[in-house]
Amino acid sequence: MRMVDLIEKKRDGFELSTEEINFIINGYTDGSIPDYQMSALAMAIYFNGMGEKERADLTMAMVHSGDTIDLSEIEGIKVDKHSTGGVGDTTTLVLGPLVAAVGVPVAKMSGRGLGHTGGTIDKLEAVEGFHVEIENEEFINLVNKNKIAVIGQSGNLTPADKKLYALRDVTATVDNIALIASSIMSKKIAAGADAIVLDVKTGAGAFMKTVEDSEQLAKAMVSIGNNVGRNTMAIISDMSQPLGFAIGNALEVKEAIDTLKGEGPEDLTELSLTLGSYMVYLAKKAESIESARTMLKQAIKDGSALASFKTFLEAQGGDGTIVDNPEKLPKAQYTFELEAKEDGYVSTIVADEVGTAAMLLGAGRATKESEIDLAVGLMLNKKIGDSVVKGESLVTIYSNFEDVSAVKEKLYANITISSERVEKPTLIYKQITE
Amino acid sequence: MRMVDLIEKKRDGFELSTEEINFIINGYTDGSIPDYQMSALAMAIYFNGMGEKERADLTMAMVHSGDTIDLSEIEGIKVDKHSTGGVGDTTTLVLGPLVAAVGVPVAKMSGRGLGHTGGTIDKLEAVEGFHVEIENEEFINLVNKNKIAVIGQSGNLTPADKKLYALRDVTATVDNIALIASSIMSKKIAAGADAIVLDVKTGAGAFMKTVEDSEQLAKAMVSIGNNVGRNTMAIISDMSQPLGFAIGNALEVKEAIDTLKGEGPEDLTELSLTLGSYMVYLAKKAESIESARTMLKQAIKDGSALASFKTFLEAQGGDGTIVDNPEKLPKAQYTFELEAKEDGYVSTIVADEVGTAAMLLGAGRATKESEIDLAVGLMLNKKIGDSVVKGESLVTIYSNFEDVSAVKEKLYANITISSERVEKPTLIYKQITE
Repeated sequence: MRMVDLIEKKRDGFELSTEEINFIINGYTDGSIPDYQMSALAMAIYFNGMGEKERADLTMAMVHSGDTIDLSEIEGIKVDKHSTGGVGDTTTLVLGPLVAAVGVPVAKMSGRGLGHTGGTIDKLEAVEGFHVEIENEEFINLVNKNKIAVIGQSGNLTPADKKLYALRDVTATVDNIALIASSIMSKKIAAGADAIVLDVKTGAGAFMKTVEDSEQLAKAMVSIGNNVGRNTMAIISDMSQPLGFAIGNALEVKEAIDTLKGEGPEDLTELSLTLGSYMVYLAKKAESIESARTMLKQAIKDGSALASFKTFLEAQGGDGTIVDNPEKLPKAQYTFELEAKEDGYVSTIVADEVGTAAMLLGAGRATKESEIDLAVGLMLNKKIGDSVVKGESLVTIYSNFEDVSAVKEKLYANITISSERVEKPTLIYKQITE
Repeated sequence: MRMVDLIEKKRDGFELSTEEINFIINGYTDGSIPDYQMSALAMAIYFNGMGEKERADLTMAMVHSGDTIDLSEIEGIKVDKHSTGGVGDTTTLVLGPLVAAVGVPVAKMSGRGLGHTGGTIDKLEAVEGFHVEIENEEFINLVNKNKIAVIGQSGNLTPADKKLYALRDVTATVDNIALIASSIMSKKIAAGADAIVLDVKTGAGAFMKTVEDSEQLAKAMVSIGNNVGRNTMAIISDMSQPLGFAIGNALEVKEAIDTLKGEGPEDLTELSLTLGSYMVYLAKKAESIESARTMLKQAIKDGSALASFKTFLEAQGGDGTIVDNPEKLPKAQYTFELEAKEDGYVSTIVADEVGTAAMLLGAGRATKESEIDLAVGLMLNKKIGDSVVKGESLVTIYSNFEDVSAVKEKLYANITISSERVEKPTLIYKQITE
């Protein structure tokens, strides 16, 4: 088999076989296929796409390009959730304890990553003593015992995907549904997921700007999952404005606690219940999505969801009392209010720009070397559709710097007030459950 | 400027500016743009093509990527001829002396190359003593004096094209009119051509298999030439069967001598007169293509074309007496006849396969290291449309091996005889003179 012939085949619109895709991914991983051939293939895929079978084959070839996590010693169906990424998305912090409370095993491998705020591990480290440096065996024991544990990323997972993603990034071949979908799915499957729930974000703050594009991506991922024996469901959810109120690490932990108590923001609560009910259903802990949802609401109501969070934190060295006393979380030195300059209705809150404002405060990493300030961030006091009176606070700014003029400027530029009444945006656009 | 943005621009169907194309070719030549970005761009060009201005810009950017040959000390308009390559194409050997005889300066830089037979230099070296190792100054003096000289390739001409061609070859991005046309034109222009005549071959033995594809390529090259100030004309000529009768180095020199005497094969003579008349016209040595043709026919008739060849050979150390005594050319030890197995009409002579048969005898190079046997080759005794009687010789095989069974087998497999009368193929399909 020669790579040049396979590039030509794809260029001419033919489908690559399983054997051919394995040859490509194995050769690219071991270096026998050079970058310049892979980028030409990626561009041919950009133009001619990949069929369902090719996408599934590509996903599994990338899964097998490196280590895979064996979660077989954990009882039950391991369901993983993935979000395509947004601003102020506290869902993971809420969902873990919430579904664990009804018996779904949550064996989360997580990273730190770059972005507006830290990754899940960074956020959890806002809880004093909490750490993810645990052995695999302990990780598995904890999941079996408490139904939830988080471990740092280790092992050489999907090296083909890492290498290919870096190449696509510099060759204008990122924007392709087949390549995006198989990249995401390969990582989840390599991390040991038996079933997968996907939250595809749409809107200004998301990678996919339109509902149509988001739906295409969601359907592509659901199809891959189902074709490789991992039951997969997806929703398309709004990221035209940040989710919830909090954008920042400790602030999001506090918001997660509120939500687990039943006192969280409406949108975050609704999204957590929707995604959670899919997870419970896919883990076969409920007979229908509706009954799963009822179970989760009950877990919030009876305190078991919050208790699950406390147990989880304490099992990994964290101070569990913060769930009762969130004021123990790291606090910023200064707070400032962003006062509305006029009466009216909030009409836009540009999610990614507001996220960047939080990053300016130190809430997220711009580069791998950046230090995160866990205490700082933003709390939205108003969301799209809310009425506002001149002088009222739109956002509370938590900062360890005294001068937040640049942050305020960015926020003013990206939060607009209209004199006309504004509709609240739809939260969940589509549900793809089969 | 970032290469990734330029790849995206082309991917999305936009036109690249002169400045952008220069950035790409300069960066690729100096190594600051890596192969993996260039191959992605080449694939994007494969799908979205290039406009006339882009093609002209790409051509000139490649011309300026390395050395260019300065022929300004040669009097007159230097017209170069280029053939896209075929089997048994003796045209260059005929055309040089022919147009030189009517005053067109022929300053030919030539190579050895790979193929069914040697390059022009190899063929000429079948003449004892002939050599191309001459100084640039002598080369220019010879052209000014005799109107014709040949020199070996030197200097670093169009390094961008060399690098890009090697990359396209392994990334399935060869088959693109814009890239093929600018590659060919850049080499001709860098070699100092003021005007260019193109012979685009079509049919089984050619790179372009259909007249439509060949015409598209020819028009693309004529457009580039005219857009960069080099008057360019082209023809589409047949390569469904080999041109002329001879395939082999010494055999083709003999055939060129016959043709310059007016005793050559009909197709080779016609093609040489057509291409030659364009060259004479573009060199402004005739007022019309028709009158140019009349001049060339006269040069054959009055012996000046043959005299020009003799002068040329002698000026570069060659034994000029071979034009009168071609039997002095290297001779193969053995000759064999390929006898027709049935009565009928020759219906196909698959050009490239017959060329490969000549290479099996040693007439051409399979790799750069191969030694050429200048004496061996094939003489076609029949061409498509000729009637043949069982036992008559279809081909005479000139060999220095006693066992030519593999060569015979290949020839029998690729020369077919039909019981029905067969039309002679068209020789010149199209003429693109503006």
